[in-house]
Order: sequence, then C-alpha cells, then structure tokens
Amino acid sequence: MNAATQAVGLGLARLETREKVLGRAQYIADLARPGMLHGAILGSPHAHARILGYDTAAARALPGVACVLTGDDLGDHRMGAFIKDEPPIAKGKARYVGEPVAVVAAEDEATARQAARLIEVRYEELPAVLSPEDGIAPDAPLVHEDLASYFKVFPAVCGGNVASETTIAEGDVEAALAAADIVVEGEYATAPQAHVAIEPCGALAEVDAGGRVTLWSANQSVFRVQANVCESLGLPMGRLRCLTPRVGGGFGNKMEAHVQPLVVALALATGRPVKLILNREEDFEIVRARHPFKVRMRTGARRDGTLVARDTEVLLDCGAYGDDSPGVLGYALLMSRGPYRIAHACAHGRLVYTNKLRFGAFRGFGNPQIAFAGETQIDRIAERLGMDPLDLRARNALRDGDRWFGGGEVLSNGLAQCIEGARAASGWTARRGAPNGLGAACAAHISGLLATGAIVRVLEDGSIVLNTGAVDIGQGSDTALAQICAEALKVPVERVSVASPDTDGSPYNWGTTASRVTYTTGRAVVAAAREVERKLREHAGEMLECSADDLELRWGGRIGLKGVPDKEISFLHVSLRAHWAAGGPIVGTNTLVFDRASVDPKRAVVTGLPFPRIGVFSFACTVADVAVDDVTGKAAVREAWSAVDVGKAINPGAVEGQMEGAFVQGMGFALTEEMVWDGGRLANPTLADYKVPTTLDSPHGIHTVIVEAPEPDGPFGAKGVGEIGIVTVPAAIANGIAAATGARLDRLPMTPERVLDAMTGGGDAS
Amino acid sequence: MNAATQAVGLGLARLETREKVLGRAQYIADLARPGMLHGAILGSPHAHARILGYDTAAARALPGVACVLTGDDLGDHRMGAFIKDEPPIAKGKARYVGEPVAVVAAEDEATARQAARLIEVRYEELPAVLSPEDGIAPDAPLVHEDLASYFKVFPAVCGGNVASETTIAEGDVEAALAAADIVVEGEYATAPQAHVAIEPCGALAEVDAGGRVTLWSANQSVFRVQANVCESLGLPMGRLRCLTPRVGGGFGNKMEAHVQPLVVALALATGRPVKLILNREEDFEIVRARHPFKVRMRTGARRDGTLVARDTEVLLDCGAYGDDSPGVLGYALLMSRGPYRIAHACAHGRLVYTNKLRFGAFRGFGNPQIAFAGETQIDRIAERLGMDPLDLRARNALRDGDRWFGGGEVLSNGLAQCIEGARAASGWTARRGAPNGLGAACAAHISGLLATGAIVRVLEDGSIVLNTGAVDIGQGSDTALAQICAEALKVPVERVSVASPDTDGSPYNWGTTASRVTYTTGRAVVAAAREVERKLREHAGEMLECSADDLELRWGGRIGLKGVPDKEISFLHVSLRAHWAAGGPIVGTNTLVFDRASVDPKRAVVTGLPFPRIGVFSFACTVADVAVDDVTGKAAVREAWSAVDVGKAINPGAVEGQMEGAFVQGMGFALTEEMVWDGGRLANPTLADYKVPTTLDSPHGIHTVIVEAPEPDGPFGAKGVGEIGIVTVPAAIANGIAAATGARLDRLPMTPERVLDAMTGGGDAS
Repeated sequence: MNAATQAVGLGLARLETREKVLGRAQYIADLARPGMLHGAILGSPHAHARILGYDTAAARALPGVACVLTGDDLGDHRMGAFIKDEPPIAKGKARYVGEPVAVVAAEDEATARQAARLIEVRYEELPAVLSPEDGIAPDAPLVHEDLASYFKVFPAVCGGNVASETTIAEGDVEAALAAADIVVEGEYATAPQAHVAIEPCGALAEVDAGGRVTLWSANQSVFRVQANVCESLGLPMGRLRCLTPRVGGGFGNKMEAHVQPLVVALALATGRPVKLILNREEDFEIVRARHPFKVRMRTGARRDGTLVARDTEVLLDCGAYGDDSPGVLGYALLMSRGPYRIAHACAHGRLVYTNKLRFGAFRGFGNPQIAFAGETQIDRIAERLGMDPLDLRARNALRDGDRWFGGGEVLSNGLAQCIEGARAASGWTARRGAPNGLGAACAAHISGLLATGAIVRVLEDGSIVLNTGAVDIGQGSDTALAQICAEALKVPVERVSVASPDTDGSPYNWGTTASRVTYTTGRAVVAAAREVERKLREHAGEMLECSADDLELRWGGRIGLKGVPDKEISFLHVSLRAHWAAGGPIVGTNTLVFDRASVDPKRAVVTGLPFPRIGVFSFACTVADVAVDDVTGKAAVREAWSAVDVGKAINPGAVEGQMEGAFVQGMGFALTEEMVWDGGRLANPTLADYKVPTTLDSPHGIHTVIVEAPEPDGPFGAKGVGEIGIVTVPAAIANGIAAATGARLDRLPMTPERVLDAMTGGGDAS
Repeated sequence: MNAATQAVGLGLARLETREKVLGRAQYIADLARPGMLHGAILGSPHAHARILGYDTAAARALPGVACVLTGDDLGDHRMGAFIKDEPPIAKGKARYVGEPVAVVAAEDEATARQAARLIEVRYEELPAVLSPEDGIAPDAPLVHEDLASYFKVFPAVCGGNVASETTIAEGDVEAALAAADIVVEGEYATAPQAHVAIEPCGALAEVDAGGRVTLWSANQSVFRVQANVCESLGLPMGRLRCLTPRVGGGFGNKMEAHVQPLVVALALATGRPVKLILNREEDFEIVRARHPFKVRMRTGARRDGTLVARDTEVLLDCGAYGDDSPGVLGYALLMSRGPYRIAHACAHGRLVYTNKLRFGAFRGFGNPQIAFAGETQIDRIAERLGMDPLDLRARNALRDGDRWFGGGEVLSNGLAQCIEGARAASGWTARRGAPNGLGAACAAHISGLLATGAIVRVLEDGSIVLNTGAVDIGQGSDTALAQICAEALKVPVERVSVASPDTDGSPYNWGTTASRVTYTTGRAVVAAAREVERKLREHAGEMLECSADDLELRWGGRIGLKGVPDKEISFLHVSLRAHWAAGGPIVGTNTLVFDRASVDPKRAVVTGLPFPRIGVFSFACTVADVAVDDVTGKAAVREAWSAVDVGKAINPGAVEGQMEGAFVQGMGFALTEEMVWDGGRLANPTLADYKVPTTLDSPHGIHTVIVEAPEPDGPFGAKGVGEIGIVTVPAAIANGIAAATGARLDRLPMTPERVLDAMTGGGDAS
C-alpha cells in the first residue's frame, strides 16, 4: 500500500523466536512459586445428575492434602459471557460428564489426583439431554431450571432449553425463492471439533497476605479471565491481578475462563500458591469445543447465475453452559449469506442447552460451519447451470458500496482479487476436470469488535515501550504490533519493546479473539503513536525554534524541519529534554471502541442478535486439489491455494503462517476430526483416538496469495487474518471431492466411510 | 478541613499490615528465580588509585563461579542524576575505599565472596582528597580529571574538584548586617550520617532469551533505577523493566541506583538470574550517606527583634561521585533563610569531590544541617535580646503573601499555628528554666517536585484499581493514596486496590523522595478520579435519562440525581454498562508536572541552582526537653513536642508515625551518629560502632500536634510530611542543651565529650 514503509510489510521472525528456539520461553507449566500446591479435579461421571451429598473425609485424611472444595464450599456465583449460568464447581447438579464437582490441593500432583479419586459424591441420576433436537422436544428435561432468573448481558430470547434464538431477515425470501429459476436445498451437519492447542489449559494463583490474588494462566485475555474468575467466585475485581506467561495456542478455548476459578478458590482457601494444569484427556473433556451445527439451507438463482435468495435455519448444540455460544449463533447467521449480493435472505437459529461440555469460541466462530453449507450450495448451482464455480462466485461477489447481510457497511473488499488470485495461482482453468478434484470456496470474516487500548512510551533515552494488554498466543501479534508502532514513529522495530499484559498496568484489551488484534489494537497503537509524534514535534519545535507544524518524523528516530535535511534532532535529545522540562517520558495513549454498526434497521429485521457493532471484513478464496482413493474412499488434499485479502500484510511471514495453519486445521475439521459421545461420555478424548492432521497429512504445497485491499481506518490498511483462512476449507475440500468423484457430502468430517457411501450412492444426508 | 470526609482523615492501619505482621511480605531477600546465581563485590582497598590491571584467573577457576566482571568488561558509560560521572564498576581509577572494582556471580553467596577475594588487582596509589578543604586547595589532586567533558543535565558551575557552585542573593546583605543592632555569627559542622534503613540494599535481575531484563530491587523509584542502570550500562531503557517488592525503608539512599547495575551486568553476562544483597558493612561503605556540612553564618537583627539579614556560606563534601549532591547544595541554600521574613539574605556554597563514598539524598536533603546553624543563631539572638525564643520566631515568621527565599510563592503557611501549638502542648512558659532544658526550633520543607502520574480504573464490577508508579518504602503512601482515591470517588477505602509499581505498566513517577508522594501523586490521583467521576456521570446520565451535570457522587459508590434521594444507581451498574457500551472499564488518567517557580528573577539573583520549580511548604515547630548529665556530659531528650503543618492529615496515624520516626532519626543525628574515616577507610561500618538510637534511647513521649493549613491545590489540602519532622531536631536539642547548661555547641553530633568540653569552656568551634 505504501512503498515507503520500512517496518510494516517486512517478513520478520517473531520477537520471541530466540527464547522459544532455546527452550527458555516460560509457559504456565514452567512457573512455580515457593510453597506451591498442586490442584486436581474430580469430574462428574454423569451427564446429568442431582448432587445429594459429599464425603470428603478420606480425601482430606490423605497425607499431603491441603484442601478439598466442593460446590457447597463456594457461594452462589455464576459466570458467563452472555448468560451468567455457570458455577465454578458444579452446585446442586452436575450437567456434563467431567464437570468439576470437587477440587483438591495437595503437596504434589499425584497426591492431589489420588485424593480426588477418594472423594465420594452421592448422585441422583437425571435424564440427560444429549442433542439439541432432544432439548427442544416438548417433554425434555431442563438443563437449567432457573434460566429465567439468570442475569443476561444482552436482552436474550430464551426459554426451556433454548439459550438463545436469533433472526435476521432482509427482503422477502419466500417470494424470491418461489420466483427463482432454480433452487438448491439441503441439510448439513458438522461435527464437534476439539481445539487441541499444543498447550493444555492451566493456571497458577497466589494470594498475598492482604488477600489480593495474582493469577498466571494460559489465556487469550487477562481481562476476560479477571472478569470471569471474579464473577464466579464473588471476588471484587480489584482484588485479582491477571498476568500471562507465554501461551501455547488458543484458537478460542482460552478466551473465557477454564481452570482459573478453581486455582483461585484453592489458593484463597489454603493461603498458598496453587497450580493446576489439565492433562490432555481433561482438556478434551471439560474445556470447550467447536459447536456441532445442523443447517437447513435453500439458495435460489436465476438462470443467468444471479443469486436471488437464501434461507437458512440452524440448530446449535450449546452444551451445558452458555459461554460464548449466543455470540457464535448470532455471528453464524450474520455470515450465512456469504460474501455475495443476494437481495433476499433470511436466517434463523436456536441454541439449545444439552448435557455436554460447554461449546464455545473456536477459530471461525460458526463461520466454517455455515460456509460449508453455503459454499457447497454455490457449487451445486454452478453445476446445475453449467457454469464455472469461480465465475459464478465472481459474478455475485459483493462490490464496492454493497452492504453486508443485515445492512452493515463494507469499506474495503478484495474478494474479486482473491478469486482471480486463486484462479491464477492454482492454474484453475487448465487443471480442472478428473482425475483432479479441484474445489473452491469463498468467504469473508470480521476483524474484531469491542474495545482495545494502547500506551506508547518514549523513555528518557529515546527507546520505546508498547503496552497494549493484548496476549500473544503464539500467532505473532507482539511482533506485528511492534512493527506498527515502529512504522508510525519511523524507528527500527528493535527500538520497540513490548510489555506483557497485566490487568494492573495494561490498557484494557478485550482479548485475542475475533481476528481483532492487528486491526483493532493496531489502530489504537497508531493513534497512540500519533499522540507521541505530536508531543515530540512540540518539544522539538521549542528546541529548534520553529513551529511544530513544520517538523516531520524522519526514519531512524529523528525529527527534522521539512525541506531542510540538516536541521534535525534525535528522539534521545527530545526525550531527555521532555523528561526534565515536562517531568517524565513522552506518552501517547488511545482507547479504541469499535463502533461500526453491523445492522441497519432500515434494511433488515433483526431479533436476538448480540453483535450490534462489528464490520470490517477480510476476504478469501481457497482452491483445494483433492485426490480420493476409490477403494478406501479416503480423501487427501494434494495441493492448496489460499488467496486472502488482509488489507495490508504487516508481517507477511506471519500472515502466511496463519493461512497455512488455518488450512491444516480446516482440513482436520473437514476430513478427520470428530468428538464422539457414547451416551453422555466423550469416547475419544485422546490424541490416539481423535485425529488431528500432522505435517505428514498436510498437502505438499499450501500456496498463499496475499491480496491487499486497504481498510481505510486500519493500521496502514491492515485487517485481521487469524480466522479467515479456516472458513473456506471444508467447503473447498467438499467441492473438490465432488469434482473428483461426483459425490456430494453434507456431513463433516468427510471420513473415508462417508465418502465411499456417497460415491456408491448411499449418501448420508442428515 | 472538611467535616464530610470519610476516607481521608481516618487513622487507618496500613494496607499491608497483615502481610508484614504475618512475616509474609516479600522483600528482595525473599525473592528467588530458577537457576539464580549470587553476586559479590570486590571493593577497592584504596581511597584513590589508578588501576593497572587485573588477574581474575584464580577467581574464575573456583568451582561454582559463573562470571567475573571488571571495569574493563563494561563500556565507557556513566550515570548520575545531575552529572554523568559514575561508572557502574570502577574504570581506570578507584575513587573511594569499597568502590566496586570487580563483581562475581557464583552458585552461592559464599563462593561468590570467596571468588571476589581471589581477584588480584594491581593499583598505583594516588594522593587522596579526604576533605572538601583539601579538595579546593590549589595543588589538590583531581578526583575527576575529565569533569569538563562529562554530560551535565543542568548547566553547572564546576571545575577542578568543585562539582557545583551555587549562589542565591536577595537585597543587600552586607549593608543590612552593617546596619543591624546585633549580629551573631558562627561556624558549624555536621557529621556524615548513615541511612541505616532496616533493609540493606539489594537487587535481582533476570534476562529473558530475547535479551530483555527484569529487575527487582529495593528502591524508591523504579523509574530512576531504570534510567540509572541503562545509562550506566549503555542499555536501551526499553530493554529493562523495573519492579519493586516491599521495601524496608529508604530515607534517600535507595532513590538513585546502588547495586542494580551490577546485577544487571552479571545477568546479561551469564544469561542467568543474579541476586546481590549487600551486608551491613558494605551498605555502610558503598551506598551513600548524609553530606557533612561546614557552614559559616551571620544573622543580623534590630533591637526590637526584627531579623534583617542573613549571610550563609557552605562547603559540602560530595564524595567521589555527584549523585544527588548538586541538588542537596542548591536546596540547602534555598532553605538557609529559614521560614522567616528576612529582607536581605545571601547564600553561597560549593560542593567538592573527595575520595569518599558518594554522599547523597537523606531525609531533609541538606535542610537539617543548615537549620542547625540557622535555628541555633535565632536562639542566640533571643538570648542576646532577652526575648522568648518562640516569641522571636513568631514575630519574624513568614505571613500570608510573603515569599520564600528566592522569590517563590508560599500559598499555605501554618507556621504561626505550629509555634502556638508546640508552645501550648509543651507547657513552654511554665516549664522553661533549669533544670529543664527546653529548646525549640522551626523549619519549613517542600512537598515535592517534578512529575507524577495516576491511573484510576473502575472495573466491570465497580471495584477500583489505583496505579501510580509510587513506591511505598514502608511509610504508608499506598494507604494514603488509596484514601485519597476513595475520598475523591466517595467509596470505602477497601474498594480501592493499589497496583505495584512497574515501569512497563505504571504511569511515570519520579520517585518516593522530596516529601512528594502525598502531595504530588495525591494531586494526580484526585485529578484522575475527577475524570472517572465525569465519565461515571455521563454514563449514569444516559441511564437515568437526565443531565450528567445534575448528578452527584454519593457515599458508598452510587451516583444520584441532586435533590432526589431515591433516584440513584450504583457504580456496578454504570460500569457494567460502560464495559459493554463503551467497551471497557472507566479509566481516568492524569500526569502532574510540578510547575510552581522557586525563583523570581525580579527578586533574587541566582546562579547554579538546579531547582527551577519547587515550592509547596510544610511547616514545623519542635520543642525538646533535654537533660544533661553534668558528670558525663551525656544529653538525653526527656520529652518532645512536634507541631507540624501538613495541610491535611490524610492518615493521622501515619503522620504521627512519620513525626515520631523523624524525631528519633534526628536525635541520632544530633547526639550519637557519626561516620568516622580513618584516612580513606570508614572506621565504624557496623551497628556496634555506629550508634543509631533505639526505642530505649527515645524520649518517653514524642507528642505530635497536627496543624492543618490547607494547600489550595493539594489533595484535600494535604502537603508532605516525610522529611519536615527531622529538620528542626538537632537545633531544638542544641537549644535545649544551651537552656539546660548554658553551653552552645556548633558541631554535630553533640557527644558527651563535646558537651562536657562546651560546658567547661573548651568549646569545639570548627
């Protein structure tokens, strides 16, 4: 976007590469405090059961046990991002297998785990709700009898087992479908996917003698953790300080709290530091996972390929607690029309409590599930009309000035370039046709919401410290933000140090989620840097005896008189003077509150949507070349091309890393990953039984095409890239399988059995 | 000052009382990091010597030694608050006995100390400068040959061994002295006093794999430590994060760096954490101490008791490095006229490098030394005129509208009330006359300078976190600032949590020094809280559908409509809404830069003064009842009364604590404490040989009279109280000895030998 950039646009190794390569990065597992205890959890063996009583005597009697807590030991407090429905330890009822019903702190982990096994809990088993369909049956048992009385952050449409119900409607979809030349329809099902971050969830809490708690944890937001823990324990937020060590991946499951309330409760009860890290099985069973979706969709088109209508109906499994789920439902509906001009669209969905672990945020936030339905329907229309699927997408793509579903503005849009970029890079036209299984899909995704801050400090010696409160979960945001800060102040990146998030000292940052850090935090960084620049110029103006307006920043940390190359002064001298004349470092601060409306009430009728303000869009077009073994039915991606519009690639290497990682994670979602419940118990909570693709399963080439349609108010034009790359993948692979075999699958994952079934005409329409 | 205050004015136990009582407070000695090494120092055996070379082989060969560093291993960097003259390890020359010439890091402290002893350093001894008089002799050896080329933060008058020369003059002092009815004159000498904080100096540094350093240390300012360490090692400041554990007293010697550069250098060299804590002997020998003063003073008065002129000449021993000393000189001169109207005054002083440890800031900052001269002269005038010494002081006390010496404004002045308060409390009139030795003295002292910030955050649940960057060194500033914040927001003090200082996350705060935290940081807290109030009212106005201007804060964390008791809303509800509507907590920030001029060029001629902006004054009048044993000459304070004008006592219990502690420390300075050099070597660096008064030496009653003459812009009227209490003590005791015995002493400490000498006519005028 700007040929003069010198820090932004550089493909830099991450700032923390050295400590990671040397094995010196400190994760939660590496931390210890003097006198530290270790925690363990006793999980419920039942999916739904009333808790009649506890016998903790044997556990307490075990040598080395410091403390046993059950739900009876904690007050009546509940947490939740949208609905306050979740106690830190099951209280009165257990609502899923594995839900903590008691926790133990002991001198070592083995003793803690042994003690947890010695706790006797008396249950009365209750009928369980194991699917959303069961949950909305008229006589269904209630997962939350007191739902009506729970505090809701947004006005919610809910009742019975329905935690949230949302509708978005534009135009007259039934009339438009009736008038369409062709209509495709289908029912789709996607599987629950586990996050499987390389680092399981864990936390360490320490209480000082004044009762204030310091909490280190694997997390995506020190601020959300602070709010969650405090509301779930009835602790004033000012009494809890949240910090973060390095984090080994998040993907959404470390955004809201996991075990943090448990370690804080144990630390408060014992007065000693307590650490608890989940083993892999527990991490599978009790953290959170991607929502399984049931989707019914109809899309209508004219014979010339113009899309005219889409109707979407979704049913989401919420699991036992609300967590981020009302947001996932609402966001999936907002995305259901895809990045296309479709004049008439309607989407309606329900989120239903069941007796499973709480589902929650996972890279894509409902968009990959809904895009699987939408983008396979686009391909079916192309097939019916005999059109090239990329041509059909290009023809209907949103153009400049078009609005998003619901009426929100779209200020930058590189979709057409993504389609042409993927087409060219993949050699689409030449390569199409069996035996090659070339499939494509398009999508858009947002770049953040809510609030974020930045503080930029120029210290006495001219070096710069950036503090944003954003947790780098391994994706490289610290590096990108340092680049943005360096670019704004025209200094080398190494001049900028990045402070670690700290609820006591960092500006508020909602979290590392929703593809938001580069765009929203980056904007705050630029604004804070501009304030620093203004102050630097004012001081320099007094020193150089000229107007601040006539001064400019020059690369390398200098301020000079415009048009006079020799007249300049370094940051060091300006900041030394500022330090003594103005009594401290030069500081710029900014708080960005995202305020672009996602809905225009003049265009759409909306109920129950908890996202009033989102709306900066990244775009993608993905092509996958899929080979299908016609004996086993096993589908494998040979090669992939992902074209993404990121506005501006702040760190192109990191952008490519995001795209490659997202492709492989999407491929797992498409082909192999599925959490399977046997009754109420998760049957495959191990890496042996739950198949995450490895490098060996990855295509030999994942080619990234970076498109830069600059967002007008983005930092140097940038938009988010954390999630967009996964959204298109299942649909592109499904379309590739269809291209290779003629078989259309409507259920994820597309396992060899299901592919073979579809190839032999069995199908498995849900 | 304000009958409605509910948080300010309460005598609260300090917030951290519980952790201290339980022994759980964490000081630097309590901290450890995995893989931590221990440091030790090899000090110079010579007061002044050229370093010809090192042999470190034996030290390096000792098992367990990780690193040995000498001045040759570090670059040519120097630190200093006013003059950049001090290398972190002696380089080329050693300038005082004990100065670090090499440092070692080893697996344990014993090994490190053994290794330090194994280092061979070849020296060429040089003639040493052991007194300021020697230093200004024409043929004196130079302590710093390169003084002219050193960087000076302020334009300094210096040269030879003179580090700084300062003059302040108002009126025509010689003419006024010539016209006076009586003139008293004298020469005074005060001894070097050691700080003897209960916690010796220490630090712990850890380097992450990216090269960024975290430094915990016993300090009075994380920001000054950051600047000192970085300039002395050539490290960019953005690469160093400074934190503070609890601090066991400072009194000035922990304001600038002590061993912090050494541990950072060792940590950078080894890549491992390094901790170094001085033993008591090292803490005496190499940190810093109160400057010994030589003072010549003349004071002239008219027969009616009107003071008309004062001329002051001082000579300060700087020690080997500049540190805060140019400030101490300048400040002592500004204080030399005392809190009186004296139309003609002149003060001139020189600060002279010697081959002793660097002297530096110590509670009172030169004022107790100069007040010893000035306030004993006031008593001599009263004696000569046959006036009551308190009457003489009251007659000449500064009044409303009067200016300070140099021309600075004095906006609040409770001196007259202090005099009357002390008079009444001590029963002065009835008690005067032998055998009672009733002595009095008055003084004023400033309340801070330079810059300070505050951030007040109202979290989602309405609890409040205050972050100021001010280090509580044990005096209770965290509690006072929490009270100020609570008062400004009308919430209970326990609702406010205080964040620990952190250069990454705290607003800039110059330091806990110059009696500045309550006044300057307190002002910033009030201003930040006012911003919070404004935002709370704006949100509440929208919620209650009324104008923000019609709303008021109500005690307990509520906002209500003026005149309508029932219409109100809690902080919790407002901040929850703010969190979602505005996307984050309600935050108020403020940076206060002290800007009241200390000098009015129309009134005074000033050269070399590095304090352009100070000028909020606390006042005191102290009365001591001294008993002198006429056989041994031992003076003991039987009882004392200290009346202080603190503007407003935020925490009266803490104010009393400051006054009592200051009295006892001043009594040690007056009667027993003296660092004695034998040639260049400190002869009494132990608590056995250096006599600090204990509880048993203290008078059975130290009575505090709190006077509140509110400072117009102070937080709820408050001014500083950290230092004022010590300033008057030596003079009050000296005046008490004179009242009891007729003997006038002009040298501190007033040991039994010196008292006996003076009683028997020997005198010891220096």
